[in-house]
Amino acid sequence: MGMTMAEKIIALAAGVESTKAGDIETVTLDRLMSNDGTTHLTIDMYNNLKHPKIADVDKLVWIIDHNIPADSTKTAASHQKMRSFAKEHGITFYEGEGVCHQVMMENHVRPGELIFGADSHTCAYGALGAFGTGVGCTDYLYAMVTGTSWLLVPESMKFNLTGKLKEGVTARDLILTIIGKISANGANYRAMEFCGEGLHTLSIADRISICNLCVEAGAKTALMEVDDVAMDYLKEHGREPKAIVKADEDAVYCETYDIDLASIEPIVAKPHFVDNVVPASECYGIKINEAFLGSCNNGRIEDLRAGAKVIKGKKVADKVRFLVVPASRAVYNQALKEGLLDIFVEAGAMVMNPNCSVCWGACQGVIGEGEVLISTGTRNFKGRCGHKESFVYLGSAETVTASAIAGEITTADRV
Amino acid sequence: MGMTMAEKIIALAAGVESTKAGDIETVTLDRLMSNDGTTHLTIDMYNNLKHPKIADVDKLVWIIDHNIPADSTKTAASHQKMRSFAKEHGITFYEGEGVCHQVMMENHVRPGELIFGADSHTCAYGALGAFGTGVGCTDYLYAMVTGTSWLLVPESMKFNLTGKLKEGVTARDLILTIIGKISANGANYRAMEFCGEGLHTLSIADRISICNLCVEAGAKTALMEVDDVAMDYLKEHGREPKAIVKADEDAVYCETYDIDLASIEPIVAKPHFVDNVVPASECYGIKINEAFLGSCNNGRIEDLRAGAKVIKGKKVADKVRFLVVPASRAVYNQALKEGLLDIFVEAGAMVMNPNCSVCWGACQGVIGEGEVLISTGTRNFKGRCGHKESFVYLGSAETVTASAIAGEITTADRV
Repeated sequence: MGMTMAEKIIALAAGVESTKAGDIETVTLDRLMSNDGTTHLTIDMYNNLKHPKIADVDKLVWIIDHNIPADSTKTAASHQKMRSFAKEHGITFYEGEGVCHQVMMENHVRPGELIFGADSHTCAYGALGAFGTGVGCTDYLYAMVTGTSWLLVPESMKFNLTGKLKEGVTARDLILTIIGKISANGANYRAMEFCGEGLHTLSIADRISICNLCVEAGAKTALMEVDDVAMDYLKEHGREPKAIVKADEDAVYCETYDIDLASIEPIVAKPHFVDNVVPASECYGIKINEAFLGSCNNGRIEDLRAGAKVIKGKKVADKVRFLVVPASRAVYNQALKEGLLDIFVEAGAMVMNPNCSVCWGACQGVIGEGEVLISTGTRNFKGRCGHKESFVYLGSAETVTASAIAGEITTADRV
Repeated sequence: MGMTMAEKIIALAAGVESTKAGDIETVTLDRLMSNDGTTHLTIDMYNNLKHPKIADVDKLVWIIDHNIPADSTKTAASHQKMRSFAKEHGITFYEGEGVCHQVMMENHVRPGELIFGADSHTCAYGALGAFGTGVGCTDYLYAMVTGTSWLLVPESMKFNLTGKLKEGVTARDLILTIIGKISANGANYRAMEFCGEGLHTLSIADRISICNLCVEAGAKTALMEVDDVAMDYLKEHGREPKAIVKADEDAVYCETYDIDLASIEPIVAKPHFVDNVVPASECYGIKINEAFLGSCNNGRIEDLRAGAKVIKGKKVADKVRFLVVPASRAVYNQALKEGLLDIFVEAGAMVMNPNCSVCWGACQGVIGEGEVLISTGTRNFKGRCGHKESFVYLGSAETVTASAIAGEITTADRV
């Protein structure tokens, strides 16, 4: 019986010829990412072990991205702990270089790898054909110490993409549409695998945006076939694949969806769930207090270009805060070079240093009681971005920027 | 008997022909600045008044600069309160436009004005020959409601400047030297008045830096003679003086200092007091964890130019966080245009949105236990920038930038 992409990658990591959904495999991890959300807890647990050791320090990548720069003595202490542990053990370490997943994509992820990340959006790595999955800090510790872990092999869902997104419609609209269709629990513990001719029309930025958000449908991971676009990205970044896996013809999928990209329209996810999606037009006129362009989902150069194109020569609405936060230093530098930051600040936006920002509701851009945020972030759960009685709408870079200009939710064609 | 500048401005505001140190005068304020440090408290008190009213709303300027964007639901609520009150009453309102004193200098301050600001560094306005002084929120409320307040007329100290600062020596080195000389209590409740040929060699940026820091010697206010440099700045910014006052020949000064600017050397104020100054060379080799270029004291375009000149083509030391925070949107935009931000980010600095940043130890760049910060901020009190067991050194833009490169305290001539 044929294997899915997920099964093939797990088989590789387990050193077995084949595996299938429902099996449990012991796997050797290729890479272990952790950020300042929980690494201090991992360190505390590590230090309490009777025989602490790191199986393969070269596989560890630690990244400070959630609260950078530190906003309290508590986070400063947590960062200090990470810094000194990383230095002592020779762990690859980034601080202030960007949101962890973007930094990983730019510098580490290789097709065919099995990667644990102590962050739910680790599934983003599927954009390069890697099996990334989020784990808690205890699972992370076990993998860090032993170099291995176990996995219940997930069932896979197949998303066969055809056609091409229309002008003004984005990959984010696509994945929000999919999540709306299958629901926030629609892919629970499953791998969402993307293939088809339509896939080739999507940039790596698009693919990261799609894979990254799959966890919002409950997915264990997301995976995309590696094509020339992916290989070009790898080459540009000086990396080789571990393995390029492709699902077998007779691989077993629990569900298959055929999606014509041309059918996708601008979408907004309304409070307080990511699957509460409606056509953006249904939200026209909803007043906003803040708009956020950034995050691991939508803070890449392509997103900043899209936003800058919409806002060039226009102004942010009076009394609206428009936060623009490049997802990495590389993105920031490129945006500077292209004059995009000039466009944003001239329009009245606040441009900030690369980090997770208001996507996770701490440190920057927190919203108050009754306030409305439209965001390119990952989540719109109740209280996610500030006060428990606040409201987060999710939209694309274009929709968020257009809304910042209008002072109310709108789309780029209307400003 | 002749009058000092301070006495003349108070006499004007009191509507009397003359006054003298030790007198108490009832004055009509020209302008009332308040920021998000305490405005929410002012509003609460205002709303509890039996007969709340604002004497002259056109004189009020409210500025969100301390925690912008909001970093918690608490600050978000405080900002909401400010925004809605300002909107309801038609108060001139800035949010995210920069540090309050820089915004005031760019947009409002006029020679001869008497200005209360609910912030200790309001004495900065002396750079344009205005009597600015910091008040608590209760005094602010009284002035807001009645348009008036009372002042015990301060004695004045005279600083007669001659010569010119040497290359690589800054106005910040000058004022730190003065504070070191007269001590942190050396100007308690006095006006520090600056005059002389040397004054004309100083830019407005220099003058703001000097006046701004006078409160660190305990000064009630700082005042500089208005010359062509000041008039040019005013003209560029489209404003006219209220009055240009000059001290009378026979004005009475409690102390007079003659300072040859050419005698000033690079200075560092060591923890934990601003007057704990030594030649920068005495601090050479002290390892730092963070460097901060910004604040109302040293975040102007001239400071960014100075820093960029030092760091161009060089790199921030490994494991050092270098925070660059332009003091206003105007400064940020100008720095963008001149390519200064490019230089900083290419060197590895974090460039942030205009606000008070780590100068007041909240929201951005907080330092942890045992950590060392070298800063262009206003204060180095114990715990001011983070953990109570941390260490803040104050230096010029050049010294701070050079130290960021070296990873230890040094001066620009040594990197």
